[in-house]
Amino acid sequence: MKLLRIGPKGHEKPAILDAQGVARDLSGLVDDLAGDVLSDEGQRKLAALDLSTLPALPDDRIGPCVGHVGKFICVGLNYADHAKETGKAPPDEPILFMKATTAINGPNDDIEIPRTSQKADWEVELGVVIGKRAKYIAEAEALDHVAGYCLVNDVSERSFQSERGGQWTKGKSHDTFGPIGPWLVTRDEVADPQNLGLWLDVDGVRRQTGNTNTMIFGVAFLVSYISQFMTLEPGDIIATGTPPGVGMGIKPEPVFLREGQVITLGIDGLGSQRQTTIAAGA
Amino acid sequence: MKLLRIGPKGHEKPAILDAQGVARDLSGLVDDLAGDVLSDEGQRKLAALDLSTLPALPDDRIGPCVGHVGKFICVGLNYADHAKETGKAPPDEPILFMKATTAINGPNDDIEIPRTSQKADWEVELGVVIGKRAKYIAEAEALDHVAGYCLVNDVSERSFQSERGGQWTKGKSHDTFGPIGPWLVTRDEVADPQNLGLWLDVDGVRRQTGNTNTMIFGVAFLVSYISQFMTLEPGDIIATGTPPGVGMGIKPEPVFLREGQVITLGIDGLGSQRQTTIAAGA
Repeated sequence: MKLLRIGPKGHEKPAILDAQGVARDLSGLVDDLAGDVLSDEGQRKLAALDLSTLPALPDDRIGPCVGHVGKFICVGLNYADHAKETGKAPPDEPILFMKATTAINGPNDDIEIPRTSQKADWEVELGVVIGKRAKYIAEAEALDHVAGYCLVNDVSERSFQSERGGQWTKGKSHDTFGPIGPWLVTRDEVADPQNLGLWLDVDGVRRQTGNTNTMIFGVAFLVSYISQFMTLEPGDIIATGTPPGVGMGIKPEPVFLREGQVITLGIDGLGSQRQTTIAAGA
Repeated sequence: MKLLRIGPKGHEKPAILDAQGVARDLSGLVDDLAGDVLSDEGQRKLAALDLSTLPALPDDRIGPCVGHVGKFICVGLNYADHAKETGKAPPDEPILFMKATTAINGPNDDIEIPRTSQKADWEVELGVVIGKRAKYIAEAEALDHVAGYCLVNDVSERSFQSERGGQWTKGKSHDTFGPIGPWLVTRDEVADPQNLGLWLDVDGVRRQTGNTNTMIFGVAFLVSYISQFMTLEPGDIIATGTPPGVGMGIKPEPVFLREGQVITLGIDGLGSQRQTTIAAGA
């Protein structure tokens, strides 16, 4: 299934794409794409619906594909080639950091360039959406705790991230720095999360090309690993790292985002996003 | 006002302490101590109540003093003497990191020692509860965005924090690592947040003694500073750093927590907490 949320910011309706690509309104059946709705049982109920009986939603803004996200956990330097372009050795175990949940945005909403920003950058990433509580779980059972997958742009301000006091959160958390979606694609529709192509363009110039088959730590390992340090809950999102091609890695000189640019990105089977950069609002 | 939440985990009722120290039930009036209830307008409504008309709640577990916390933001090395005991230079600007919101716990609930933990540690801290959205706000207006203050134990696993891949979140986020409360004390009752004594004992031995007057960055500066990097929302909590005396700083050998110990801590006017350490559950 491809699940999505449609409507104005903060007032999105849960929806499901039918075979013709029409968004069908789920708001009469579930409150949101969150919590128990993401569980295997919740998904079975949605899969049993006759979509033709549900109202079609008019074209409108697509919101973030998950509601009430409790934690937005990110993995750093998780592609061997990306670690190399940053000049760092591949990590011995996953690097974890958090993005503020207030950074979450719709897939095609504008991205703010923060005041004083000189080094705003892009990162196409595979997002993992948790469907079932996970604490101290083994790698072999980890994918049972995954509701599905989505496209994430882990927008980053490199100066805030690395030159302003040492913890990455500071450069990852500005409003609009976390577009997720367009869809939550349930895990039954993703045959192999470790074989998905990813790409990202800025103003039509291809900047990132990669495949999740070059991840250092795969999805099942990551879910198990993170569950040793914190409890994952339904609706939590894990952004699993970015392949090569971020702005700070471009030679001979790094390239960063400025206002008025267009970013497009996609992952095989998970759809695409399109964002315009604007000045930060108050 | 002293606001609190009473009842079993996940089913706490909002309450207010009356002049006799009796918890009066607010659940007929507000859903939770969260969101708009924390605003100046929300507080004015509570302050106008005749508490004697509200049902007294029976003695029961005290829960976390805020519900639906969106972000749990922490400041590192924010007391000059604590920075010194860790062997690090005082930071030029605040170090920020995030605790998982799933770590939030009642003030007297048991604290889990994670599996494989060898370096669990304590940190008494002044918690700042946001009452009003804050983005790019000036220091002079920052306290207008504060609903009030609470006691926080920023429980930390030093090996997970510093020896497992570089970002502190990993050592700060285990379930139960964030006791908050007993009360949210509204800001009108805290004459000077920069002159509050703090203390913490482990098994009756005084380990931490400090005063918020030795903070490197004060509350107003921190709220303004953080609002440059992310938007603060009502119910967000900022843990403002810990004074000297953490286990990892004890000479000649550091001292860490093991199962079966009792931690007590307090801050002037904000009440006290009492936790017993236990083995981590699944």
